[in-house]
Amino acid sequence: MNPSTVPAQTFRAIDVIRKKRDGGELSRNEIEALVSAYTKDVIPDYQVSAWLMAVVLRGMTRAETAALTDAMLHSGDVLDLSSLGAKKVDKHSTGGVGDKTSLVLAPLAAAAGVAVPMISGRGLGHTGGTLDKLESIPGFNVNLSVAEFRRVLETCGCAMIGQTAEIAPADRKLYALRDVTGTVESPYLICASIMSKKLAEGIDALVLDVKTGSGAFMKNEKDAAFLAELMVETGERMGKKVIALLTDMDQPLGNMIGNSLEVVEVVDVLRGEGPEDLRQLCNELAGWMLHLGGVSESVAEGKKQSEKLIASGRALDKFRQMVELQGGDPRTIDDPNKLPRAQHTVMLSSSGNGYLVSLQCEQIGTANVILGGGRERKEDSVDPTVGVVLHKKVGDAVSAGESIATIHYNAETRATRALQLLQESYQIADSPPLNKTPLIHRVIGKPGDKN
Amino acid sequence: MNPSTVPAQTFRAIDVIRKKRDGGELSRNEIEALVSAYTKDVIPDYQVSAWLMAVVLRGMTRAETAALTDAMLHSGDVLDLSSLGAKKVDKHSTGGVGDKTSLVLAPLAAAAGVAVPMISGRGLGHTGGTLDKLESIPGFNVNLSVAEFRRVLETCGCAMIGQTAEIAPADRKLYALRDVTGTVESPYLICASIMSKKLAEGIDALVLDVKTGSGAFMKNEKDAAFLAELMVETGERMGKKVIALLTDMDQPLGNMIGNSLEVVEVVDVLRGEGPEDLRQLCNELAGWMLHLGGVSESVAEGKKQSEKLIASGRALDKFRQMVELQGGDPRTIDDPNKLPRAQHTVMLSSSGNGYLVSLQCEQIGTANVILGGGRERKEDSVDPTVGVVLHKKVGDAVSAGESIATIHYNAETRATRALQLLQESYQIADSPPLNKTPLIHRVIGKPGDKN
Repeated sequence: MNPSTVPAQTFRAIDVIRKKRDGGELSRNEIEALVSAYTKDVIPDYQVSAWLMAVVLRGMTRAETAALTDAMLHSGDVLDLSSLGAKKVDKHSTGGVGDKTSLVLAPLAAAAGVAVPMISGRGLGHTGGTLDKLESIPGFNVNLSVAEFRRVLETCGCAMIGQTAEIAPADRKLYALRDVTGTVESPYLICASIMSKKLAEGIDALVLDVKTGSGAFMKNEKDAAFLAELMVETGERMGKKVIALLTDMDQPLGNMIGNSLEVVEVVDVLRGEGPEDLRQLCNELAGWMLHLGGVSESVAEGKKQSEKLIASGRALDKFRQMVELQGGDPRTIDDPNKLPRAQHTVMLSSSGNGYLVSLQCEQIGTANVILGGGRERKEDSVDPTVGVVLHKKVGDAVSAGESIATIHYNAETRATRALQLLQESYQIADSPPLNKTPLIHRVIGKPGDKN
Repeated sequence: MNPSTVPAQTFRAIDVIRKKRDGGELSRNEIEALVSAYTKDVIPDYQVSAWLMAVVLRGMTRAETAALTDAMLHSGDVLDLSSLGAKKVDKHSTGGVGDKTSLVLAPLAAAAGVAVPMISGRGLGHTGGTLDKLESIPGFNVNLSVAEFRRVLETCGCAMIGQTAEIAPADRKLYALRDVTGTVESPYLICASIMSKKLAEGIDALVLDVKTGSGAFMKNEKDAAFLAELMVETGERMGKKVIALLTDMDQPLGNMIGNSLEVVEVVDVLRGEGPEDLRQLCNELAGWMLHLGGVSESVAEGKKQSEKLIASGRALDKFRQMVELQGGDPRTIDDPNKLPRAQHTVMLSSSGNGYLVSLQCEQIGTANVILGGGRERKEDSVDPTVGVVLHKKVGDAVSAGESIATIHYNAETRATRALQLLQESYQIADSPPLNKTPLIHRVIGKPGDKN
């Protein structure tokens, strides 16, 4: 019908779908209307999935990405933590294998006087999840109400919980739909999903750890850098200080993979011990958190402060305090041998002499899933005790028959499959790798401060 | 999980969606599984709409298009009309304004000894539909069972009905979903939709009339030609003789637009009268139908034969016979004044002296919709009596105040809006148009015969 003969249009999902399909830019109003209507079940899944696919294939402008993030953020409650006094800073990782930095950083930054209201996720696929790791501590409760979350934050400066129903409900609905419609893999949608949840925490600043390499979701650096830039710019458009570190996930981070095993390694790092790569990354991320949180003049200063807080035991004390406040058994922090452990172990030996030149990182994560330590589907439960301990990392010399990894397991058949997969993950050569990829590839974003 | 550790995959919609999203080519098995699962309600709308959008934006190969057509065709019954003896040929138009050729061609080809089992659609948007036109004949029943359809065909050689529930149910379901998800506009999906329904008629050959111009769905010739080639190749891959005529829809076909008005013009043509453009196109299409139906040596021969069948009155007799067999009142064919007529008429006068250089064809179709002669939504009912009669076509000289069109209407307010729209559709200039677009742009396809 002739446009002049019909009344002014109200929102119609089909128009928004067609516009995106044809490569157009959606207005803030159109995006808000779409997200709001979907969250309220006013428009059906099948229209939104068509729109999502159009976004995957057509992309979004920066303004659209920010508008989507904003609409998702405001689909639910935004925490007001202004009463805390301290600046609120969070850290988010795009996910990897052996990445347990959150458990180190929350208490470490809190010990420095930064508030860390951390809302995390569970493991899915080959990557681990912060909540699963925390729940391996007997009694630890990640399902706090907002009031309880606030109380823990007020008492010790950090708290770590799972997503509540009130936070970004649009993201929960959209994510579930993306998961079954092949529309997960879009940097714009990933950005909006991450940033809407993080900004709903009511934070002032955010440090992003964007992983790249064989164990990351973004296997190549270009894609990871693009996502990092998108998240930084989106956060800035929304008035937050955001920085992204592009870091290596070509081999697992640290030596331990598996839920309670990773808590052991966290305690090691908070004691000033633990593997070099994990310590270095925690230090770098903490430097940024302290700096953006306004408790250190520079990142370098923040890093020094972090070292001192570890050396003095104050960071570990903070972790113990948080664990106790969230119902966890604090004795496990003093003696990690009290953490739940798998019944059996089996050793993987080197097949030859030489140097370890690469580790199939995703396969090692998958080995942990096979052991029961991760989940294939969201509904799966995890075994907190199982996992893999690596005795050699890329660049290390190995000799035939030497133990290069230990599998912690409870079921023989699972161990056999995991061992086989692990075996296939190692590449040993006569000479050491020529170029060892650096742990931190680069820093993206300039929140107006010296590094 | 590692591929080696999971059992052989059964069909998963998500894999097919991802493959198409990433620009891959789907196998015949994948397409069949998707269509079959969707038709049986095994996979949800939201997965199929994501896939449809991926098809719209990624396209399909010829093999995929044929596989999709085949899967949709075999989602329901395929008529077996081999008992008819005669070759079965149908004609399909992609839709336009004033296009009533089907009503001329079915009886004309049947009079020549070709069987025409025609399953048609209703009008939607600015274009008219064959079923609506037929239903303006009092008593005419387009909802025959397959058995009744066969009986009419056996008796008079042609029959014209609407889609039954048994024919290509996958198309019905997919079309309804495309309609609300912005996934109508894909030549691959349009091709599969048209060809699956047409081939389900059990035909030997098909003459396609692909419209291009301001009143067609495909406004530009390149898109129309692409769709035509796609349909010809798809039909050929499925063992049918298919030819496509790319024809003009930059102005309405013939002079009458509106359901019963168009039947009047059909009778005119079958009487050897009527407007030149409509007669010419019917003759051309009939030539091809007779040739592909094996009753004439060449298209030219088929055209001559058609002329004779009209001159002798045999084509009109066949039309009357079909109308009667399908419950329609045959007296309306002998005296079209007996067809239902609108209560009022109003004249549109030329605003100046000169030549008619263009007609906004889609707007004229829309004027008919406004009058009540078409439908905006599928659920709408149509008024068989209203419409527009054009007294001047592109290239004609006009003088100020001269009647250039007559509106047939029942509601004053509708007439006012239609008149205004019509007025805006005419462009009059001092000199005649330089290049008059030919009625038949070109013929696509080579079913192995001389033109």
